[in-house]
Amino acid sequence: MENRKIKDELIYFNNVVNFSSTSLRNVPTREQAKWQRKTVVTLALTFLTSSQAKLIVWSKRAGKYEYSVTTANFLVETLKCALSLAALARIWNGEGVTEANSTTLDEVIVYPIPALLYLVKNLLQYYIVAYVDAPGYQILKNLNIISTGVLYRIILKRKLSEIQWAAFILLCAGCITAQLNSRSDHVLQTPLQGWIMAIVMALLSGFAGVYTEAIIKKRPSRNINVQNFWLYIFGMAFNAVAILIQDFDAVMNKGFFHGYSIITTLMILNHALSGIAVSMVMKYADNIVKVYSTSVAMLLTAIVSVFLFGFNLTLAFFLGAIVVSVSVYLHSAGKLQR
Amino acid sequence: MENRKIKDELIYFNNVVNFSSTSLRNVPTREQAKWQRKTVVTLALTFLTSSQAKLIVWSKRAGKYEYSVTTANFLVETLKCALSLAALARIWNGEGVTEANSTTLDEVIVYPIPALLYLVKNLLQYYIVAYVDAPGYQILKNLNIISTGVLYRIILKRKLSEIQWAAFILLCAGCITAQLNSRSDHVLQTPLQGWIMAIVMALLSGFAGVYTEAIIKKRPSRNINVQNFWLYIFGMAFNAVAILIQDFDAVMNKGFFHGYSIITTLMILNHALSGIAVSMVMKYADNIVKVYSTSVAMLLTAIVSVFLFGFNLTLAFFLGAIVVSVSVYLHSAGKLQR
Repeated sequence: MENRKIKDELIYFNNVVNFSSTSLRNVPTREQAKWQRKTVVTLALTFLTSSQAKLIVWSKRAGKYEYSVTTANFLVETLKCALSLAALARIWNGEGVTEANSTTLDEVIVYPIPALLYLVKNLLQYYIVAYVDAPGYQILKNLNIISTGVLYRIILKRKLSEIQWAAFILLCAGCITAQLNSRSDHVLQTPLQGWIMAIVMALLSGFAGVYTEAIIKKRPSRNINVQNFWLYIFGMAFNAVAILIQDFDAVMNKGFFHGYSIITTLMILNHALSGIAVSMVMKYADNIVKVYSTSVAMLLTAIVSVFLFGFNLTLAFFLGAIVVSVSVYLHSAGKLQR
Repeated sequence: MENRKIKDELIYFNNVVNFSSTSLRNVPTREQAKWQRKTVVTLALTFLTSSQAKLIVWSKRAGKYEYSVTTANFLVETLKCALSLAALARIWNGEGVTEANSTTLDEVIVYPIPALLYLVKNLLQYYIVAYVDAPGYQILKNLNIISTGVLYRIILKRKLSEIQWAAFILLCAGCITAQLNSRSDHVLQTPLQGWIMAIVMALLSGFAGVYTEAIIKKRPSRNINVQNFWLYIFGMAFNAVAILIQDFDAVMNKGFFHGYSIITTLMILNHALSGIAVSMVMKYADNIVKVYSTSVAMLLTAIVSVFLFGFNLTLAFFLGAIVVSVSVYLHSAGKLQR
């Protein structure tokens, strides 16, 4: 009898332990950890991006950049590279060099591609202004949302449900609506060349994003800092080329850091951190999450501006914000049942 | 043997006949006929409504109505009443007076309610202009979309899926976006009294629509012309009251038809026919279809104006049209599985 009781208690105890370790500790905590990581990187990206636009505006004096933009971009890549290397050094110290935190040569050869695509896109940016004014360009940049969705589908072969496609179209329409102002209608007079360039730029930027995700996701066990290191090394290289093409004379005559201020430094720091957040989102979430996150950031920027600078929100902003919010809801409500 | 063959053939023949009469003739044709009737009345409403706004604008001279609006409204109700009575007379001639094409007294007592609600709403319209300008009022009228959805849910107890609710919010946001112009932002300065009146008007108009549907749907076998006759008789009565309240002096001094033109006559004809189309939509479809149909009509009006009058479409219009189109898609994609 005593024996039987002990046995029962043991079975009971075992069940409790098994139960708690299986369904409370193991399975959900892994899922929970994944979900938490995804949420943290997404929120980080959203908040970093939402302060970005303001810092860029602040870094201008009388509407013009006093510093050379290409040197700032180069420094952003350098800082990201340094931060990845520092993180790697810590990992190597702790775990030693393993397969997960080092690279093979055949893997490295694809890393220049996104950096090259961004370089071409940034250079095109200097030519499109001949066809579109600044508010128009701001609006056309939202085509990027659609191109990312299309290329995500084609290249990564990941399916979106019909509801999610509808949500994506709404996200694009909502972002443009929120940015409408009295001069926005000019964009309808954009000549064909302007439209073609805008579409090419949207495709380049979408392709760069999707391709980065493909590279990062191809080896899920590879440490993100190794992957970032290689992305940023080539980012540095191509931005060095951009300095040579665009600002060589200015840098030689006035110096590399001419016109830098505290705001410029803060902006570079913010860009570097949000760049790393983008990589993290690619690793732990995807390009779709990235697009939603930067769109919501755009809305947050506007709302924060109201409190900080007494800006007035327009009716168009409210309408755009409603459409973007419904789009976020539909994206999650429309998840494909697998 | 011969007998057996004949019997087999008979069974085969019967099966074929049953098959064709059940699945090809009876069931689908009844469903098809329902669907066709629903489509025809919806399209009729859309096209009649889309020419309405233009006729109202045309009927003004130098931005003002030369005729009294209350007399025009009264004539619209009278014409609808006459048309229903004519249709009824034909039916009585053919079928005789049956239960389906006549009324009981206890049924009639609810018919004044929608007409009364519309009268109150139309009278409020004269007071709200103290708080909101014309473009602002145009925008606030879209609140009607939301109130119709909410009252449809509460009063008719018909469920919309979550996706369909999202679609309904988008419909409202899309319609407002499409109507944005440089003066729209004024609406954000509307004082509290203006907002309250706008919401009350939206609720009155939504309630009148939903209540009409409830009355018409309560007796599905009742002929629509009987139901319309009673609706319009009370419409005539309440519009006569409106003439007394608002335009008694003008009518007594200048005459009932003062300032009428061919355009006014066409407008009254159009209003009468689209009023009948609204009743048909209530009978064979519902208030949700009505709201979608009039929203799409608003977009069509703008597009037709481009071809007829060389108007320019704004970027806001395109964005609103995209949002409304996605909303129409989501409304049908989000249908509840029953």
